[in-house]
Amino acid sequence: MAEILPPPAHPALFLRAAAGLETERPPVWLMRQAGRILPQYRALRAGFPDFKTFVKTPEAAAEATLQPVDELGVDAAIIFSDILVIPEAMGLDYEMIESKGPRFPKVIENQADVTSLAAGAEAAARLEYVYEALRITRRELAGRVPLIGFAGAPWTIFAYMLEGGGSKTFSKARRMLYTQPALAHNLLQKITDTTIAYLRQQVASGADLLQLFDSWAGELPPAQYRTFAVPYLRQICEALPEAPKTVFAKGAWFALEDIGELPCEVVGLDWNTPPAFARARAGEAKVLQGNLDPCCLYAPPALIEAETREMIRQFGRRHIANLGHGVYPDTPLDGVRVFVETVKSFQWT
Amino acid sequence: MAEILPPPAHPALFLRAAAGLETERPPVWLMRQAGRILPQYRALRAGFPDFKTFVKTPEAAAEATLQPVDELGVDAAIIFSDILVIPEAMGLDYEMIESKGPRFPKVIENQADVTSLAAGAEAAARLEYVYEALRITRRELAGRVPLIGFAGAPWTIFAYMLEGGGSKTFSKARRMLYTQPALAHNLLQKITDTTIAYLRQQVASGADLLQLFDSWAGELPPAQYRTFAVPYLRQICEALPEAPKTVFAKGAWFALEDIGELPCEVVGLDWNTPPAFARARAGEAKVLQGNLDPCCLYAPPALIEAETREMIRQFGRRHIANLGHGVYPDTPLDGVRVFVETVKSFQWT
Repeated sequence: MAEILPPPAHPALFLRAAAGLETERPPVWLMRQAGRILPQYRALRAGFPDFKTFVKTPEAAAEATLQPVDELGVDAAIIFSDILVIPEAMGLDYEMIESKGPRFPKVIENQADVTSLAAGAEAAARLEYVYEALRITRRELAGRVPLIGFAGAPWTIFAYMLEGGGSKTFSKARRMLYTQPALAHNLLQKITDTTIAYLRQQVASGADLLQLFDSWAGELPPAQYRTFAVPYLRQICEALPEAPKTVFAKGAWFALEDIGELPCEVVGLDWNTPPAFARARAGEAKVLQGNLDPCCLYAPPALIEAETREMIRQFGRRHIANLGHGVYPDTPLDGVRVFVETVKSFQWT
Repeated sequence: MAEILPPPAHPALFLRAAAGLETERPPVWLMRQAGRILPQYRALRAGFPDFKTFVKTPEAAAEATLQPVDELGVDAAIIFSDILVIPEAMGLDYEMIESKGPRFPKVIENQADVTSLAAGAEAAARLEYVYEALRITRRELAGRVPLIGFAGAPWTIFAYMLEGGGSKTFSKARRMLYTQPALAHNLLQKITDTTIAYLRQQVASGADLLQLFDSWAGELPPAQYRTFAVPYLRQICEALPEAPKTVFAKGAWFALEDIGELPCEVVGLDWNTPPAFARARAGEAKVLQGNLDPCCLYAPPALIEAETREMIRQFGRRHIANLGHGVYPDTPLDGVRVFVETVKSFQWT
């Protein structure tokens, strides 16, 4: 299949869909589409000593961002970066351990640690390399498809800053919500202020839409998600009227009613969430994004096609096609193509 | 608090509650109550070179099982063991890496691997050390509280056998459901047959009730949970009319209606699931078990007490008090005590 050119993407489709307008088919893109699934990415990446150097080289980040648009014909580009640039800009350095994930040598433990962090515009000013990558990408895209900027949601960034990496239980981060709630709010506010300044600059640098990734949303009890996550998502959404916003809170099925009341346009869904359940909870006003099981792309083509069409049918209109999680790095490229092309050949009658 | 004797447990309370009978308060126990939270356990464990030797010594397993009954005054004992004794009995050896978790040097990859596994009564006969631990415990308990036996649910055991340990994405196990569904069913059936023989022997050895732990239930899309998990849970529940059964499918909020239709008496719930949601989905007939956030036990006593009472109030009758997950190993013992004693001092009027 590699020699077949992908069908052309539709420049306005994604923005129209995100605005809730009727479209002839759902637009399609994949979380983590810029990355290891593409041989072009692996070749580009091989020229850099480590992940962070790569992320901090705007020309390379821009090239990685453009690759899936060229290779897969997706309807949107998403800037190649990492949600952990925010803790780093606030003063908490991280390492990316190959095939393991991020690790923070120092974590947040007390008030002094929180006080010592930079925040807001001062911290966001340290992310010029992201803004430059956005400017380059926007220029190179030349209007072919819109460009998505993104950030981690405050609770997820908070969890990384306390855990020092991923975790089975997130019990260090979650413990603080019970034992030092005021300190937790203090840190969440600093993260939020930084994220708002960061996303404003992303829009000023060429991001057409914004997505917030709340990767660890599903770790919180419903009442805590309402107290420690939703208000900060609200602040961010309210502060950025200039771009359509997607909130993707993985595992937070229990918070879909709250998320449905946020001033965002699109709600991202994981692969556990039946479309009808999400629609009933998030309300009629939202566009829903998702949610094919990323493992489905390991399946034979006919099954990928059938599952993709069934997903579109279940969502109905007001839907942006995507997976329910970032595409797994070992996903066969042909499986990704079948997914993208099945969506692109769909036609609402 | 250590010198205060716990209030006496109620011998029949747990069995009455599991049978759906009205009780003056909910019974209380904790998943992983036998383990690292207790100094007695750590002292006992220190006498063994590794976890597996410990698990395979019936006198030690029985002592660990009894410790929380003596120390915390919980209303049930649960046999000290591990869900991974089943893959081992089927021929797939595992190591327990200290503070990391289990690792299988060899994993299941193809039909020949599945064919080579032992199953059913033949495999279950290799778990005599568990049955002996149950017999000793039952004798030592002398009717003070009932004894819970347990096993992993087939999907969770299947996931370990394919992944070789925990996983961020479970993509090896989940891939097989898409690429080799017949082989997946073949393996799930062998696990199920072994689990039924194992649990029958547990009941014959003194287990009063049984719990199935589907720890990775939340990794599956709803349609796959219905296809690859629920039918095997049903087989197990149907095969064991001789004891009340609890199904705890962590993260499977989307399957609560299916679980509500299983011939089990009790449905375990994680800390994400609001009691009213679970009741509406699982139906009026089930007893619900759970679901305080395990991180709540890090909180100050007054907050643990308030959250525990609020949980009981939200569940109402037909409830067994527990956490929404196994107690975390670093939980302060005094926090556990406050939880247990708050439930035990509660009184329905």
